Amino acid sequence: MLNNEQYPSQLLERAVNEFAKLPGIGRKTATRLVLHLLRQEDKDVFNLTQALDTLKREVKYCRVCHNISDTDTCNICADPRRDTHTVCVVENIRDVMAIEATMQYKGLYHVLGGIISPMDGIGPSDIEIQSLIDRVAAGGIQEVIMALSTTMEGDTTAFYIYRKLADYPVTVSSLARGVSIGDELEYTDEVTLGRSIVNRTPFQTNH
Amino acid sequence: MLNNEQYPSQLLERAVNEFAKLPGIGRKTATRLVLHLLRQEDKDVFNLTQALDTLKREVKYCRVCHNISDTDTCNICADPRRDTHTVCVVENIRDVMAIEATMQYKGLYHVLGGIISPMDGIGPSDIEIQSLIDRVAAGGIQEVIMALSTTMEGDTTAFYIYRKLADYPVTVSSLARGVSIGDELEYTDEVTLGRSIVNRTPFQTNH
Repeated sequence: MLNNEQYPSQLLERAVNEFAKLPGIGRKTATRLVLHLLRQEDKDVFNLTQALDTLKREVKYCRVCHNISDTDTCNICADPRRDTHTVCVVENIRDVMAIEATMQYKGLYHVLGGIISPMDGIGPSDIEIQSLIDRVAAGGIQEVIMALSTTMEGDTTAFYIYRKLADYPVTVSSLARGVSIGDELEYTDEVTLGRSIVNRTPFQTNH
Repeated sequence: MLNNEQYPSQLLERAVNEFAKLPGIGRKTATRLVLHLLRQEDKDVFNLTQALDTLKREVKYCRVCHNISDTDTCNICADPRRDTHTVCVVENIRDVMAIEATMQYKGLYHVLGGIISPMDGIGPSDIEIQSLIDRVAAGGIQEVIMALSTTMEGDTTAFYIYRKLADYPVTVSSLARGVSIGDELEYTDEVTLGRSIVNRTPFQTNH
């Protein structure tokens, strides 16, 4: 509906074009956001742009786990209260944040920065697999938890890592898969339901 | 779910906070967008931030109709093919873009830059009403089309302008209201349906 001709200002159109490159942001939303920013104080807009510029210029990744960090070693790896015997392997930074938000995990992480995907031309050497093997080879790690998506790519990546780790004295585990808490059985897909029967756990009560 | 504690980097958190101030962008979406930008080339991020900074610094508003513009007089006001006898009054720049996209209107615009809203403390002097009266008083305008929302605020604003224009030899009209093209009658609200019966138009065929 909004063709290029309709933009009354090229400066506006340029800003909208840049915003519309963001994933999930169409031209209509981009226009709404840019016009919203136009109505804000100068400092509010500059706060946004400076925060992005600064992040992009100064971002660091933890030299141990490759999580995003403000320092050479991230807060999690540097925290003496964390269990250094356990490493949870995840695809990206958002997975770290999601697991941290559960407050159920006290070990360390390893951020692959992607997943093996031949379709997208991403092989084992394009992601942080070798550095994971090196961490395990250095000793001290007793368990590696695979917390990857249950997609073909996720399973491929997990299996590749599993084989690479076979020579080391380390336990490899996966996230439990099963019926989501709160979900009704009849709406659970049959693969998940089937796996949750096979991998049933001892009955627990709150009494 | 994502509390502040979970952000592994303060630079990241600051950028997410700024993004999350945008309307309709929650913290989860903001995080996704910022992490997306982190994965892009430096120049892609700087293109975005520079486009916003430049727009904010150099934006102009047309001195005639108050539409956004790169020049003192906007492209529409400066276009000799436009009908200068007709002025369409709209609330904001997006309304201009929406009407321009229809390619059905060849007159000029007047962007109020807001709408009379006592609840929000916006009175007639806070928006571009006096400059509209001045344009009409200067002569040459034969029709003023009210293209404001059919909300209480829109109706109040339209009525206020209508009374201010009563002393001038100008026709005041409104957008036609009725059943949307493609809508089914049974799902049309009764106010709209009632008004579309009262304001029925001569039958038109495509034959």
